[in-house]
Amino acid sequence: MPLKKPESDFLHELANIAEQRILSSYLKSHCIDISTKPKEGFRFDPVTNIDRETEIIIRRMISERFPEHAIMGEEFGDTGSSTYKWVIDPIDGTRPFLCGLPVWGCLVGLLENGEAVMGMMSQPYTGDRFWSDGKCSWFSGRLGTSIMKTRQDAELHQAILHTTSPESVKLYHNNKFDLLQNQVLMTRYGGECYAMAMLAAGHIDICVEYSLQPYDIVAFIPIIENAGGVITTIDGRRAENGGAIVVSANEQLHEQVLNILNS
Amino acid sequence: MPLKKPESDFLHELANIAEQRILSSYLKSHCIDISTKPKEGFRFDPVTNIDRETEIIIRRMISERFPEHAIMGEEFGDTGSSTYKWVIDPIDGTRPFLCGLPVWGCLVGLLENGEAVMGMMSQPYTGDRFWSDGKCSWFSGRLGTSIMKTRQDAELHQAILHTTSPESVKLYHNNKFDLLQNQVLMTRYGGECYAMAMLAAGHIDICVEYSLQPYDIVAFIPIIENAGGVITTIDGRRAENGGAIVVSANEQLHEQVLNILNS
Repeated sequence: MPLKKPESDFLHELANIAEQRILSSYLKSHCIDISTKPKEGFRFDPVTNIDRETEIIIRRMISERFPEHAIMGEEFGDTGSSTYKWVIDPIDGTRPFLCGLPVWGCLVGLLENGEAVMGMMSQPYTGDRFWSDGKCSWFSGRLGTSIMKTRQDAELHQAILHTTSPESVKLYHNNKFDLLQNQVLMTRYGGECYAMAMLAAGHIDICVEYSLQPYDIVAFIPIIENAGGVITTIDGRRAENGGAIVVSANEQLHEQVLNILNS
Repeated sequence: MPLKKPESDFLHELANIAEQRILSSYLKSHCIDISTKPKEGFRFDPVTNIDRETEIIIRRMISERFPEHAIMGEEFGDTGSSTYKWVIDPIDGTRPFLCGLPVWGCLVGLLENGEAVMGMMSQPYTGDRFWSDGKCSWFSGRLGTSIMKTRQDAELHQAILHTTSPESVKLYHNNKFDLLQNQVLMTRYGGECYAMAMLAAGHIDICVEYSLQPYDIVAFIPIIENAGGVITTIDGRRAENGGAIVVSANEQLHEQVLNILNS
């Protein structure tokens, strides 16, 4: 008997328990216990503990409900093999989490035979949730619940461009980011996964991230695609495996952006 | 008879009415009506309308309560002359406001004979408020109300550094930002006024902004100083007039940062 596809309600159940665990540690104190630890390797350790604990809670809930499903997470790697694989990052954006800047998120995505079919980003502190059930993309938060649509009429010269880190841009081997930057309305930095959500919601038009892991991006693929956006690697392939990722508000814009970044 | 100093409760009254006005326009649609307007000059106009309307509301409330007081605002300039001057920016961080990134804020500060004595940043979407009554600095938000303290033991090699725009860094005539960046734990971008609030709350240690107006910074001076931090211009003068501004979690760190940036 083939496995039954989970309902998107389960994404909310996972977000609820993750939110509870993460908020109990958020903004409590400066999280980096760096005074007793070497600068390299351990500097984010205490935050990793929150990450680890939350991942354990999420994994347990998935395993109880869907014992046959595989899971991939940032902290505990790959377990199981199945038509369905959950891909999770309990705290995506460790650095803004440390800084108290509310642009980090809890990411949960679902792969069906290797293709992303459902996903959610929740932002526990603001209470925002951005998710897709595979048909439509939704945003619920302080101002209510609405369907998300990317800006279908966004043109390059009017576009708002986002990338998280100017340092990552510089490190990329074939960096044409400045060519792109010269053709858009403005560039913003530091927005992390919240910027991807705002692209789905029609407030940002292009996101470029040069070094993503699968658990950073799988949750967003259905959210972006079902909001009318396009998400691929910089060389135009599907984004499920991470790497250098480009997200655009519409097809035409995406083609232009890829042409510039690959010129 | 000398004028009576206002109570900090009034800051909350102002934040309440600003929040109401601003949230009624937030995330409603893509705010830039750029399709019908020239790229330069008008591209942020519709947002400026929200700014203007909110400034009118705030000015009216101040004038009704304190008719003798002077007011300086981003949109309508200076009015009146008095021992007390209110300095306001209804939406500080127009760009993240447009992008839907919740790091913008509503700023209200009070000068007494030219020196900042009270101030508040409110973030209407998250519901966060950061303020100082001139004695203490406070943070109220989703997780409750608490006194804010900067990291008194923050050392340079452990410090988290923030600046909003790498482009502003490059434009500054005597740019030693990279020297500073090489000596800290990590650098973050794009946090706008929310990053200053997080410095007061002990989660960020150094903020450098190269081009601020008085209405961008007056509200923060009492918040930072009463949380134990130091805020000056890059050449060590008081920050009330804006310019290139450096904020640090403690005195020793501030001295080191100014030495590096002026080297």
